[in-house]
Amino acid sequence: MTQPFAYHLKATDGAARLGEVVTPRGIIRTPAFMPVGTAATVKGMYPEQVRELGADIVLGNTYHLMLRPSAERIAELGGLHKFMRWPYPILTDSGGFQVMSLAALRKLNEKGVTFRSHIDGAYHEMSPERSVEIQGLLGSDIQMQLDECVRLPAAPEEVARALRLSLRWAERSKKAFEAQPPGRALFGIVQGGDVPDLREESARGLVDIGFPGYSIGGLAVGEPQAVMLGMIEVVNAILPQDKPRYLMGVGTPDDIIEAVGRGVDMFDCVMPTRAGRHALAFTRFGKINLKNARHANDPRPLDEESDCPAARDYSRAYLHHLIRCDEMLGSMLLTWVNLAYYQTLMAGIRAAIAEGRFEAHKAEVKEGWARGDIPAR
Amino acid sequence: MTQPFAYHLKATDGAARLGEVVTPRGIIRTPAFMPVGTAATVKGMYPEQVRELGADIVLGNTYHLMLRPSAERIAELGGLHKFMRWPYPILTDSGGFQVMSLAALRKLNEKGVTFRSHIDGAYHEMSPERSVEIQGLLGSDIQMQLDECVRLPAAPEEVARALRLSLRWAERSKKAFEAQPPGRALFGIVQGGDVPDLREESARGLVDIGFPGYSIGGLAVGEPQAVMLGMIEVVNAILPQDKPRYLMGVGTPDDIIEAVGRGVDMFDCVMPTRAGRHALAFTRFGKINLKNARHANDPRPLDEESDCPAARDYSRAYLHHLIRCDEMLGSMLLTWVNLAYYQTLMAGIRAAIAEGRFEAHKAEVKEGWARGDIPAR
Repeated sequence: MTQPFAYHLKATDGAARLGEVVTPRGIIRTPAFMPVGTAATVKGMYPEQVRELGADIVLGNTYHLMLRPSAERIAELGGLHKFMRWPYPILTDSGGFQVMSLAALRKLNEKGVTFRSHIDGAYHEMSPERSVEIQGLLGSDIQMQLDECVRLPAAPEEVARALRLSLRWAERSKKAFEAQPPGRALFGIVQGGDVPDLREESARGLVDIGFPGYSIGGLAVGEPQAVMLGMIEVVNAILPQDKPRYLMGVGTPDDIIEAVGRGVDMFDCVMPTRAGRHALAFTRFGKINLKNARHANDPRPLDEESDCPAARDYSRAYLHHLIRCDEMLGSMLLTWVNLAYYQTLMAGIRAAIAEGRFEAHKAEVKEGWARGDIPAR
Repeated sequence: MTQPFAYHLKATDGAARLGEVVTPRGIIRTPAFMPVGTAATVKGMYPEQVRELGADIVLGNTYHLMLRPSAERIAELGGLHKFMRWPYPILTDSGGFQVMSLAALRKLNEKGVTFRSHIDGAYHEMSPERSVEIQGLLGSDIQMQLDECVRLPAAPEEVARALRLSLRWAERSKKAFEAQPPGRALFGIVQGGDVPDLREESARGLVDIGFPGYSIGGLAVGEPQAVMLGMIEVVNAILPQDKPRYLMGVGTPDDIIEAVGRGVDMFDCVMPTRAGRHALAFTRFGKINLKNARHANDPRPLDEESDCPAARDYSRAYLHHLIRCDEMLGSMLLTWVNLAYYQTLMAGIRAAIAEGRFEAHKAEVKEGWARGDIPAR
């Protein structure tokens, strides 16, 4: 019998939650950070490395995969897990966010959205049903409903229109999802911009429809952190305690630790991988820009106490050199450093919640970032 | 006491030689292929991976390293081995070849060559003495004399002028090299273009000066393979049996196996790494271009019998997808495949010489390349 999808809340500390999302492909320890594997690869990393860092799940982008190599091709080849050699859980987005941010000639109506590929201009149709179908072909363990995410700032009427459309699409998505094999989950997505009443309306509407997990979308799109955290509080007061909550596309280590303190369980963000390709290292001392000439002669590693070989064994001078020369190894090492740091951050958060000292831990972590990098000898 | 540099000839099979180059940092099993680590990194590979493939030595490019981050900076940081985390033998070229092919405003005279950096236009001087000094600062185990390599085709008088200048530079290089710590070696470089008499003159001149090893330069620069192999035969008839012979910048698997059959011991080439970044895989079935659309739906790995995870575990369809999407992992995996293949090729060659069946082995290997790729089911 297939292991059914489930969420187990194991401990709370204030609003922070320690839990497990159980899927047929494995357990996701929450709060969890999901590395982003846009085009079926976490950029610059071998899949085994991603796993060794402690990632229980990665994210794939439906929009990119439907264009290249296509969902049908991946299905023929045995699904996304086999294709990218990641036999553990995979979460996919609906594709809607990237359609609205990357594709050309978008036209949205009640039925769905039509667009042209940003790669070859080919015409595509995306509906709630087609998004779920694509995610099913990929074999995704945790799928997302198609929603409409409006850019902020936006007029409240526009935000309301989009969230109500998203609610109708949530129902259609749930219906379409019934065709899929057991063990998988479809999450509804809370929208509502920066308007508390609309966030409430969205969350209540989704809970009425009923989903095995809930995503919080449309945040970290340029609004101040305080606004984002306020919206999370409003939404999490409504979402059921016995279901996982996923804050989409977030974020900085600070965003993550603050959102955990408000009851969020799952995160994804391109930040650690993208920053790694742009000379930026995340460490317990805060961010370090290896492009800076002050590193050119610094024999110290990024963090001699790190478990990550990339952070512990390579000198800053060498990392600086690789970046100056635009060498692949520079991106490979800093991506590794950053994903390791994010997973270490999550492991520390989980341990602190288990011990009932989340707030103290949060203060310590922030103190490390604020203290900044150890000066060179 | 520092282990002195030495070459031990262990077996011969026709002109093919099985041997060991002994250095304080380790033994180099010959015939050996040296992966190229131009800017203190074998592009797209972690140093541990390069080692695990069976590389006993890597090559660093003096020209690139003197410009970025500079020999003095690397020396301050503890030398090239420490800088790039490769504690095993390193061979460096003199920088002369890249000065002549990459730098701007080159001026060459008896003293040496002046040029401007192709990166920032900075003015530099390079002489036989300075080249040896730079290689010493890097801490190179096997260093090259500065020479002048003329492009082919060239008039015999021009080839003669360059080889005689190179011989005078060889003497100056040897003198300058005396200042270096024990255990290191300086190789003289045979020039003479495609003119047998001039190749002989060059080889005899160098042997008269006396070096612990000899390089054969100025080949694989566009001439037919038969011309290259002819020059190798001329030169190796003169070079002493008890010293290693290094064919610079060569080459394809076929060039290597043919040159081994004519008594060459050491090789380096950017081919496996560069081809890996351009969708080309070297396998026992010959070259496979993963850009080709016929791979798009092929679930088979490149070579299911390979020991290399990149060749054995990833589908051709996935490799094709990564290349189409210009994903870093595509270059990483194909570089890995190619360096693994080159090291496997050398290991097979060494085993065959030891067993006295080099010619039969060569025929088998070539049969595999000629048979071509296994057709898709």
